[in-house]
Amino acid sequence: MVIIGFIDVYACEKDLKIKEDGLRGVGLNPKRFRCIKPEIRVLGIDDGGFLPRTEGTVDVVGVVYRGGYWLDGVMRTEVKIDGMDATEKIASMIKSSPHYKQVRVVVLNGITFAGFNVVDIQRLFKELNLPVITVTREKPNLAEIETALKNLPEYEKRWQTIANAGKVTKVYTRNEEEAVYMQVAGISKSDAEKILKKTSTRSSVPEALRVAHIIASGLAQAKEH
Amino acid sequence: MVIIGFIDVYACEKDLKIKEDGLRGVGLNPKRFRCIKPEIRVLGIDDGGFLPRTEGTVDVVGVVYRGGYWLDGVMRTEVKIDGMDATEKIASMIKSSPHYKQVRVVVLNGITFAGFNVVDIQRLFKELNLPVITVTREKPNLAEIETALKNLPEYEKRWQTIANAGKVTKVYTRNEEEAVYMQVAGISKSDAEKILKKTSTRSSVPEALRVAHIIASGLAQAKEH
Repeated sequence: MVIIGFIDVYACEKDLKIKEDGLRGVGLNPKRFRCIKPEIRVLGIDDGGFLPRTEGTVDVVGVVYRGGYWLDGVMRTEVKIDGMDATEKIASMIKSSPHYKQVRVVVLNGITFAGFNVVDIQRLFKELNLPVITVTREKPNLAEIETALKNLPEYEKRWQTIANAGKVTKVYTRNEEEAVYMQVAGISKSDAEKILKKTSTRSSVPEALRVAHIIASGLAQAKEH
Repeated sequence: MVIIGFIDVYACEKDLKIKEDGLRGVGLNPKRFRCIKPEIRVLGIDDGGFLPRTEGTVDVVGVVYRGGYWLDGVMRTEVKIDGMDATEKIASMIKSSPHYKQVRVVVLNGITFAGFNVVDIQRLFKELNLPVITVTREKPNLAEIETALKNLPEYEKRWQTIANAGKVTKVYTRNEEEAVYMQVAGISKSDAEKILKKTSTRSSVPEALRVAHIIASGLAQAKEH
């Protein structure tokens, strides 16, 4: 038992070292997690709501949690409703944050923000050199999304981005009753599943994502008043 | 042990019942806590920063935590820099929030928001029928505050509000090294101290207040960009 513990700690530290040695931003290989510390820094990202048929921008909030335990930081950006800027805005929000170096994985509430502003999770992974996991409580209905996209400019590009995000996988996180659906970039499905299980302490999604949702909704409500 | 546990639970439930029976808003007596549950709902309130010599408003963020453990909700309002509207704006933010009924105590980061917009904690207690505790890491320098107030309109009223907030008490929360300073309204010092001790799980201030600070600062930074 003691020896196992020692190896785990060593592997975690080595993993950390590789990142800090400056490989960030150049590596394109999926991240491999030799161990997942309970307090792994997770960045959860969600958007605030908006009234149907409005134009303009929507707040997008990023929340850094240490595993499923405590909040370390908050960041915010704005993306255009049904626009094309979500990937770029989210990448730049993270890169300019003082938490960038500590974050080990990015968890998005689905692949579309502010309506149908699609996040290119492969590009996000490459720009940040951080694994990206999308999580939704409902199985994404791709046929419905495709129909909706046809009413928007740059339909082909949006649809291609969704197709590039890869297969939707059903996983169980906190317990065997509540399934969530994920897509991944820059990380194996098995590592992603382990991270989701370890950090979903209060609901079926990682605590960082649950709290990002509460903050983004709280701000959106306040804006409407 | 079992009997003690039973009495505690009973007392907590009774306490809760009194509140729900509709006394909120009419009672002016200090709240007495027969027991303080570890997951007592605390509303922590802090403001975002602003650049010196700017005018306008500053975001004020309220965060509901269950004790020191997990985040339940977020609310926001705006108050005028060096204005006179903090008490009213904070009271109305709380009253219009879906969390109002669950909150048992309000914890403010000090008594002044957005510069010298002073919160009347006695009035806040009476309007909400909820105990109010102010917490600061540094001992408030009243002489310095008085000098600064003299440069502002309605000096007398501001200073009177600060004087009415009562004596500043030094208390130890998470450990015996980190003291904080509190003022209270509608609650005994001893109950206030117990609540601070129980909910300061990650720093020397209640988790709701630590997180309100992080969120308010995160939003303020984003606004300056």
